[in-house]
Amino acid sequence: MTDVSALKPGSTIGIFGSGQLGRMLTTSAAELGLKTHIYSDVTGPACDVAAENTIASYTDFEAIKSFAKSVDVITFEFENVPLDAVKVAADYARLSPDVRALEVAQDRFIEKSFMAELGIPVAPFANIESKSDLAVAEKITGFPAFLKTRRLGYDGKGQARVTTPQDLQHAYVELGEPAAVLEGHMHFEQEVSVLAVRGSDGAVAFYDLPQNTHKNGILNTSRVPSTVPADVIPGAHDIAHKIADALNYVGLLAVELFVMPEGAANRLLVNEIAPRVHNSGHWTQDACQVSQFENHIRAVAGWPLGATDRHSAAVMTNLIGQDANDWARLAAQPGASLHLYGKRQARPGRKMGHITEIFPRTPQTKAKT
Amino acid sequence: MTDVSALKPGSTIGIFGSGQLGRMLTTSAAELGLKTHIYSDVTGPACDVAAENTIASYTDFEAIKSFAKSVDVITFEFENVPLDAVKVAADYARLSPDVRALEVAQDRFIEKSFMAELGIPVAPFANIESKSDLAVAEKITGFPAFLKTRRLGYDGKGQARVTTPQDLQHAYVELGEPAAVLEGHMHFEQEVSVLAVRGSDGAVAFYDLPQNTHKNGILNTSRVPSTVPADVIPGAHDIAHKIADALNYVGLLAVELFVMPEGAANRLLVNEIAPRVHNSGHWTQDACQVSQFENHIRAVAGWPLGATDRHSAAVMTNLIGQDANDWARLAAQPGASLHLYGKRQARPGRKMGHITEIFPRTPQTKAKT
Repeated sequence: MTDVSALKPGSTIGIFGSGQLGRMLTTSAAELGLKTHIYSDVTGPACDVAAENTIASYTDFEAIKSFAKSVDVITFEFENVPLDAVKVAADYARLSPDVRALEVAQDRFIEKSFMAELGIPVAPFANIESKSDLAVAEKITGFPAFLKTRRLGYDGKGQARVTTPQDLQHAYVELGEPAAVLEGHMHFEQEVSVLAVRGSDGAVAFYDLPQNTHKNGILNTSRVPSTVPADVIPGAHDIAHKIADALNYVGLLAVELFVMPEGAANRLLVNEIAPRVHNSGHWTQDACQVSQFENHIRAVAGWPLGATDRHSAAVMTNLIGQDANDWARLAAQPGASLHLYGKRQARPGRKMGHITEIFPRTPQTKAKT
Repeated sequence: MTDVSALKPGSTIGIFGSGQLGRMLTTSAAELGLKTHIYSDVTGPACDVAAENTIASYTDFEAIKSFAKSVDVITFEFENVPLDAVKVAADYARLSPDVRALEVAQDRFIEKSFMAELGIPVAPFANIESKSDLAVAEKITGFPAFLKTRRLGYDGKGQARVTTPQDLQHAYVELGEPAAVLEGHMHFEQEVSVLAVRGSDGAVAFYDLPQNTHKNGILNTSRVPSTVPADVIPGAHDIAHKIADALNYVGLLAVELFVMPEGAANRLLVNEIAPRVHNSGHWTQDACQVSQFENHIRAVAGWPLGATDRHSAAVMTNLIGQDANDWARLAAQPGASLHLYGKRQARPGRKMGHITEIFPRTPQTKAKT
């Protein structure tokens, strides 16, 4: 089971997590003749399409052991899988990406320290373990700054923007005085992400950089091509490549970057990484020959990577909460591909689906003028 | 349950048949937030991805009734679903396409008579119920001709090419003296298929016509764009449109056509129809915004049809039997998307997968020269 050779068609990929990313990984695996087995503590969108599901606690190590023994490789669709669960599983099946990627991505302080060690620029940051660290932290970052919990923050949760020492004190108490980091607010020009996929042989391929916008702390749109200057792109690739190599990473890695104005000390700063397929890569389903989901599956299965070429320009827009109730109108929108995750309850802030507009003729039109 | 309004996301589509077409319908349904429930007498490739499976005989009417009551609409992925089964199911759930499409497609004589009634050209044909019909039949068709069983023939099975009266006698006995048709051999220039999708509101959309080649009676390649003259295309569309309207068809309809040489009495002859998604439309997964599978699902769900636009040129090649053993090399082929169906045994003549090469830059290059 720890054989690193390619999985044969008919093999089973175990996935920790049952969300929409696991669902889209599963349908991509199916296109390659591979099955998935989902392990999650809740029944989620992936369960409808997976060949097998285990719904059990992440502390049920017997269930995890059975799960791991039943699959040929294990991966995950969210970065907050409890490490103990992953470590138990890794005793019985190959794990891709490695547990180290989770350790780094689960804790903002470890993540930023890891970048600093690799010489990769990040915003100024300071570790906060208690109230007594706040005064030193604000000297490092200045104001405005973002106070963020070290662990379990996502989609704008577990964070606050602060502009004064009083603000910071108040926000820290509000968050429950957790282990946290304070990050300097960076006046970036735009946000992009690198979607890199690294194969089990160390080969790395990149998708075009999407330019991302957020709303209420949640990704709103991703657009390709981005307006990022061409001379910035090789540096973005280098950063992702360096991170992937340092983690001996296998799979799809997303690196969120701030693009700073020309003349800034560092043109690119890493905001955070996601050791998994990423919302800002959903457009690859409709605008690329091989999507991020299929390439993640290819990588963890030990298969050659697929083409990351883009055949169309694209704009992906998330459908959050009630947005998805408009599915009938969205399904009729010309030039757009609708994706719904099959979630029953459209709670506020919940990702219910996305819609991708593609523009296949854009390059052709440009070539003519 | 017989409501013709659009199915809400989260609804379930029942599918008769568990083959690769059901599998690809299921993953397309999942992209729209819809579930599938497979009914088949064998566990097949679709079962790995369906939310629910019923494996039971097509004569188990109690099982069919339970199945039908559990779903919101019923469709099928092969045209030889026993009619009795379909009729029982149709008492409990909406059926799309209608049973009439199956009646026509299941019997070559009914199919050809149906075309003749609509004024749609087909090759000369004659009905054969016993040996005594052979002499008259050969006068109608001439030689060479094709002797084909009226029912249950596919992929070159249940048919023989005959060139003399002795040949015909011999072939008829070899086939077991079934109800059959004799068809005149047509010296066509090329084979194409129309992939038409008709919505529940009667709207019809067409994919580009693929040009098809066969090997050993099985589809080998489908290519778009075809080399069919542009002035022939409207006639091809008209034929499919007429058939779809006559059947009050809802879903994807494939019409196989022979393109005859310029100056022939009829430029287009219908070879046969398939009331389902079709092998010659698999390239739509990789070269179109919305695939034939998603459009079939949209139609049967009562949703608006999706864009049939093609963003790339494409060549789809079937992987038959041992071809699929070469998956590792095929997965590494640049510019190609590999699709495997997850079938365990690679028997000769068995469809194991397909590979689609896409050429996104072809139109752009053409525009420049």
